[in-house]
Amino acid sequence: MVRHIYSCPLRWSDMDAFGHVNNVVFLRYLEEARIDFMFRLAPGDGSPSFSGGSVVARHEIDYVRPLVHRHAPVTIESWVTKIGAASLTIAYEVKDPAASNSNAVVYVRASTVVVPFNLEAQVPRRITAEEKSFLQAYLDEPGALAA
Amino acid sequence: MVRHIYSCPLRWSDMDAFGHVNNVVFLRYLEEARIDFMFRLAPGDGSPSFSGGSVVARHEIDYVRPLVHRHAPVTIESWVTKIGAASLTIAYEVKDPAASNSNAVVYVRASTVVVPFNLEAQVPRRITAEEKSFLQAYLDEPGALAA
Amino acid sequence: MVRHIYSCPLRWSDMDAFGHVNNVVFLRYLEEARIDFMFRLAPGDGSPSFSGGSVVARHEIDYVRPLVHRHAPVTIESWVTKIGAASLTIAYEVKDPAASNSNAVVYVRASTVVVPFNLEAQVPRRITAEEKSFLQAYLDEPGALAA
Amino acid sequence: MVRHIYSCPLRWSDMDAFGHVNNVVFLRYLEEARIDFMFRLAPGDGSPSFSGGSVVARHEIDYVRPLVHRHAPVTIESWVTKIGAASLTIAYEVKDPAASNSNAVVYVRASTVVVPFNLEAQVPRRITAEEKSFLQAYLDEPGALAA
Repeated sequence: MVRHIYSCPLRWSDMDAFGHVNNVVFLRYLEEARIDFMFRLAPGDGSPSFSGGSVVARHEIDYVRPLVHRHAPVTIESWVTKIGAASLTIAYEVKDPAASNSNAVVYVRASTVVVPFNLEAQVPRRITAEEKSFLQAYLDEPGALAA
Repeated sequence: MVRHIYSCPLRWSDMDAFGHVNNVVFLRYLEEARIDFMFRLAPGDGSPSFSGGSVVARHEIDYVRPLVHRHAPVTIESWVTKIGAASLTIAYEVKDPAASNSNAVVYVRASTVVVPFNLEAQVPRRITAEEKSFLQAYLDEPGALAA
Repeated sequence: MVRHIYSCPLRWSDMDAFGHVNNVVFLRYLEEARIDFMFRLAPGDGSPSFSGGSVVARHEIDYVRPLVHRHAPVTIESWVTKIGAASLTIAYEVKDPAASNSNAVVYVRASTVVVPFNLEAQVPRRITAEEKSFLQAYLDEPGALAA
Repeated sequence: MVRHIYSCPLRWSDMDAFGHVNNVVFLRYLEEARIDFMFRLAPGDGSPSFSGGSVVARHEIDYVRPLVHRHAPVTIESWVTKIGAASLTIAYEVKDPAASNSNAVVYVRASTVVVPFNLEAQVPRRITAEEKSFLQAYLDEPGALAA
């Protein structure tokens, strides 16, 4: 069970007038984690990364508990819950860093359907065998996020 | 079938480096529509509105087609798909204004679970009979957004 | 004395944790007013507008009084205070709409130095005679913004 | 010459449709650096920090060269250029981390006038002797930022 770990710094302005990190901002956090994750699909060769050539088709996001701005980053765990012919689904947990993941405080659970995209031709494209191989290492069940 | 209609102005900065309105920004648009909708629950009396005393528990959002910045606003139609004891579900369509809604271009379909919240006591609260009565006028099926 | 008038809608999320429109967000408002202003330099021909082919070289901004989110837009008056060979300076006032401008409540006074930019060649360029002619109609003194 | 050093992470969404960090976003970076700086004025006692009880009265910002999103943070150096009875001026340089500061690439130079604020009474207040003593350690000339 391999998971991508992203340490996500907060900004003071992520809070809204109620003094909590605004619900929309968590999608920004997921974007940062996802870009960091996908960037590893095309390392070193300088080509446009998978993250560049992809579009978001769908998000689901559950807010478990409120988060207040603080200097310590939150941890975002990402993994892959589905690999289709022309799409993949990423699941995430936004949580506190913890010695043991099993008891870390969770703020958000979410998932995103990503469609690889050929930016030049402006059309969706299929997932390559190489990409599939990379993604399979992160394949796991959706977990606590209700279907 | 009553729907709440919100005319949502875009900002140039809503676009990301790919030149489209960023997927996260659509959640901002929904927030604006939702606040405008809910504000009508507590009009005229100056009390904290329902929108103020509520939290977002969940979003689902489907991206149907890309949107580029323009001077004309988009239209956000909102309605209610579920009224629970202590939560309600709002559905939305982000679309072009159109003479007939049935053939308007749709950019996004989404839904949000909202939980009324007692800000003073910092606990969720039940939906009042008065609120339920208001919401029922907007009650309809989820529509094209897959469950 | 011709001034460009832009009616700028607020968003609830423009407020920060102190419950006021955040100081940084006012720069977003100025961006919207500036793009609307400059777009008029290249109307109708579909070419990349002046606003597209320009970069911000400098801002000065004075915060006169706090602004709280509301449904009514603020008015942004823009005019030109300096036309150089390869730059221009725009001044703004962010204020309430008013029957008479002279007694409208002012929230922010600011100015921006804009440099026209050749996006293809990635170099600054000189202001054309046609642009200068357009801009001169809006030329006025800096006003209450201290130099 | 003591300077406050803040390592500021970028977000992919800080870029605008031109593919550079948007000019407005740099003010967000300065906000983060300023909050980090001022937080040190009231450490340990849990009281509302100086940064909380203060308002921005003015910004000046010069854009020296464009910045593209990257995984490495930028460095923000902050220092104090003026301590008044009821305001202080902070200067900043946004730059690449460098072995020797004297030859680091600079992206932005800026300054902010901050007014300490009594949040309860909603009025500006004077700078205390203790605050002044803290700030004087960071007092320096404005540097390359033109007056």
